[in-house]
Amino acid sequence: MSNEKQFVKEITPQGEDFSRWYLDVIKKADLMSYSPVRGCIVFKPDSYEIWENIQRELDFKFKETGHRNAYFPLFIPESFFEKEKNHIEGFNPELPWVTEAGGEKLEERLAIRPTSETMIGHMYAEWINSYRDLPLLINQWANVVRWEKRTQPFLRTSEFLWQEGHTAHEDEQDARRETMQMLEIYREFAEDFLAIPVILGQKTPSEKFAGAVDTFSIEAMMKDGKAVQAGTSHYLGTNFAVAFDIKYLDRENQHQFAHTTSWGVSTRLIGALIMVHGDDRGLVIPPKVAPTQAIMIPIGPPKSRDQVISRVNELYAELKKAGVRVKVDDRADQSPGWKFNEYEMRGVPIRLELGPRDMENGQIVLVSRVSGEKKIVAQSDLVQEVENLLAEIHQQMYDKAKQFRDDNYISVDSLDEFKAFLETKRGFALAGWCGSDACEAQVKEETGATSRNIPFTPSVQKQVCLVCGETSAHTVVFGRSY
Amino acid sequence: MSNEKQFVKEITPQGEDFSRWYLDVIKKADLMSYSPVRGCIVFKPDSYEIWENIQRELDFKFKETGHRNAYFPLFIPESFFEKEKNHIEGFNPELPWVTEAGGEKLEERLAIRPTSETMIGHMYAEWINSYRDLPLLINQWANVVRWEKRTQPFLRTSEFLWQEGHTAHEDEQDARRETMQMLEIYREFAEDFLAIPVILGQKTPSEKFAGAVDTFSIEAMMKDGKAVQAGTSHYLGTNFAVAFDIKYLDRENQHQFAHTTSWGVSTRLIGALIMVHGDDRGLVIPPKVAPTQAIMIPIGPPKSRDQVISRVNELYAELKKAGVRVKVDDRADQSPGWKFNEYEMRGVPIRLELGPRDMENGQIVLVSRVSGEKKIVAQSDLVQEVENLLAEIHQQMYDKAKQFRDDNYISVDSLDEFKAFLETKRGFALAGWCGSDACEAQVKEETGATSRNIPFTPSVQKQVCLVCGETSAHTVVFGRSY
Repeated sequence: MSNEKQFVKEITPQGEDFSRWYLDVIKKADLMSYSPVRGCIVFKPDSYEIWENIQRELDFKFKETGHRNAYFPLFIPESFFEKEKNHIEGFNPELPWVTEAGGEKLEERLAIRPTSETMIGHMYAEWINSYRDLPLLINQWANVVRWEKRTQPFLRTSEFLWQEGHTAHEDEQDARRETMQMLEIYREFAEDFLAIPVILGQKTPSEKFAGAVDTFSIEAMMKDGKAVQAGTSHYLGTNFAVAFDIKYLDRENQHQFAHTTSWGVSTRLIGALIMVHGDDRGLVIPPKVAPTQAIMIPIGPPKSRDQVISRVNELYAELKKAGVRVKVDDRADQSPGWKFNEYEMRGVPIRLELGPRDMENGQIVLVSRVSGEKKIVAQSDLVQEVENLLAEIHQQMYDKAKQFRDDNYISVDSLDEFKAFLETKRGFALAGWCGSDACEAQVKEETGATSRNIPFTPSVQKQVCLVCGETSAHTVVFGRSY
Repeated sequence: MSNEKQFVKEITPQGEDFSRWYLDVIKKADLMSYSPVRGCIVFKPDSYEIWENIQRELDFKFKETGHRNAYFPLFIPESFFEKEKNHIEGFNPELPWVTEAGGEKLEERLAIRPTSETMIGHMYAEWINSYRDLPLLINQWANVVRWEKRTQPFLRTSEFLWQEGHTAHEDEQDARRETMQMLEIYREFAEDFLAIPVILGQKTPSEKFAGAVDTFSIEAMMKDGKAVQAGTSHYLGTNFAVAFDIKYLDRENQHQFAHTTSWGVSTRLIGALIMVHGDDRGLVIPPKVAPTQAIMIPIGPPKSRDQVISRVNELYAELKKAGVRVKVDDRADQSPGWKFNEYEMRGVPIRLELGPRDMENGQIVLVSRVSGEKKIVAQSDLVQEVENLLAEIHQQMYDKAKQFRDDNYISVDSLDEFKAFLETKRGFALAGWCGSDACEAQVKEETGATSRNIPFTPSVQKQVCLVCGETSAHTVVFGRSY
């Protein structure tokens, strides 16, 4: 890929071509590069730092709930996949295989992990002997590979980064409690940290994780009305325990299979937050995850430059000390106007302007990336004002995203109604579903939409299946996805 | 591997069989498990947490010096390796190859990265256009794979975790300054954080990194006298810049090749700190990196148990609030004596004992893992006393390790003298070297020792080559390694 091809002059408006907008904005804001390996991207510092912020917060939440991190091998022997029938069927088409190593052909092929239930199941069988070893609560931060046919930067890449929690429990009740606890942690994280409203629910059988008894997800709506599965939590029952012989002696000295769970979120969240919050001017990064929360730009004529910069640096030090992720751009070879556009495009939540007149009045100008509003505040109140504005911006972003989702989330009684909706708008449909695979497949065939999940708290319980008109077994959210 | 094989009853004394001691202690202290994949281990929570502490500190130091993290693909196309002749020669024998993916045979084989100079070189060629883009200072935390013939847990595993810094500069001077800066960061980290004294120096040509102009290392002595290369920093000159066309327009508008560096440390450090500090009772973990810095054990008869535990929990809260990584073991089904042994074996720096008499006197007992000394202090001074003792333990561990190294670090004038030394002791030899590959190879053949590095500040400059007796070109440290 030449430099020119990766260089973006103008960002395509969202309304013109949302996919083009997305690719333009992630290139122009310097978040990624295409790599020479099919479907693999390079996470450049500005996107990797978003991932680091995501990691720090989630890691804290995982540890607070008793989990510890560990690291398991990248390679998984082929025979491991064959132990859980549904698992191999689900993942086999996407596996890359190592067949040679150290100058020799391997006796058994090694897959690059697409997820680690098999490897971890094998190890848990060794580690778990008694109920005293349970619950076993482990998380792993790792790279995984799924050789996808169609890829999209951040949203679906051949290699991606994620965390995968794997836990083992004495019984179904405790494992289900864990499954729900982690789903709730993901919800709280998506909403309170990324300002992304999500729909919690259970996947239909055709959409659940290969090898799970039940899969639960949080689903978010992008600005083009498409769905992104932002996190999943699986109750695996004893499926992997039976396959890998994860047994323990219970309190009555009887052998029992452990009940296991797994749950994960990935770098796909970076793609989701861009598509939920971005606008025609570029990125809008949620304050809690933004690498730079505030950018300081000195303005005014050259003669006052040194004095202004010196005051900017003092205020910078105060903000930094208070824990704000702040930067100064005092380059002389770029105009303030250019800088305003640049940091808007990069989605920095707050811009701080300081000029000679502000100096005289002991004030400073705050500009919100979301509302565009200017606010003039006393320099002495700066830290408090910035902290307040960051909180306010987070709330505005969340409210805006929720409003957008609600505006594009229809309740339908029939497939025709759903199709009519999709002719003029794009979004989700809440509908009744009889529970048959055939009806679910027909929705996909005629609308391109798949069942996202069966929401825990739908706005309304639908009575009839949108396809066959029979009595509804579940109320389901349907939506197109990436 | 059965549970029984992984279960260690008694730790073999170091003096009897150091390798056995090492394998016993890492199993018994629950640091790792062997995995079903050749040469790959599982990093269990207690070792992974050491790695997390290492990461946090180094990451801070890297960012403080202007580096940012990024993430590059795991897979490297075969053709990339062929671009740098020395690089492919050095790494080819150790590469695992992906030849099939997504159900199809790949057109070009993909190596699993053993290190990322080639991939990053390719990307840097795209990213760097002008001197304004330099220096480019990036670090990556990642897994890498080298299909080693002989493996040793933590010290040399097929897959391991590491950081690899990759930087590009305008000229040799700036790149060499970076190379030395990172080496110094590693030295400071090894000594001030892991309490491991290291020898800084330059690798001989035969030992340098495949593709480097110059390689520098920090070398540490294990308790069996063997050497571990604890970190390396490479000045790569324009070797990779020429191979991957990393060119920039300089201040005079002329095309120039960038000068690049790379530098890394790995999970091998976990093995090193165990082998430097451990003793016959088990692990001794340096306080700054210890997952648990202090373990609190309530003692005394059952009737006072609740009261003692309640006070222990109050003191625990105080320590935790002060930032001490502290835990309480109040299990009723294990005796205090069993617990004392257990946490000694696990290498927890400080044990805190509290019993009914201590309660009466408002005191608490501190026991150092290193000296074994007991100290009775007022409960009101606990935080300060613990912080002081942690600092003291760090210093004692460093001093002890340095004393051991100095005691086993001889200066020799001839190969015979070195061989005589190795008959009774194990350790390093400082010797003159004429600079010929043949003499270096002969040392290896006759003693099993390789040149570790050419130290920057040897205790003495040696005048003659230990093999041929000709004038010495360099004073070199020789030692056996893993």
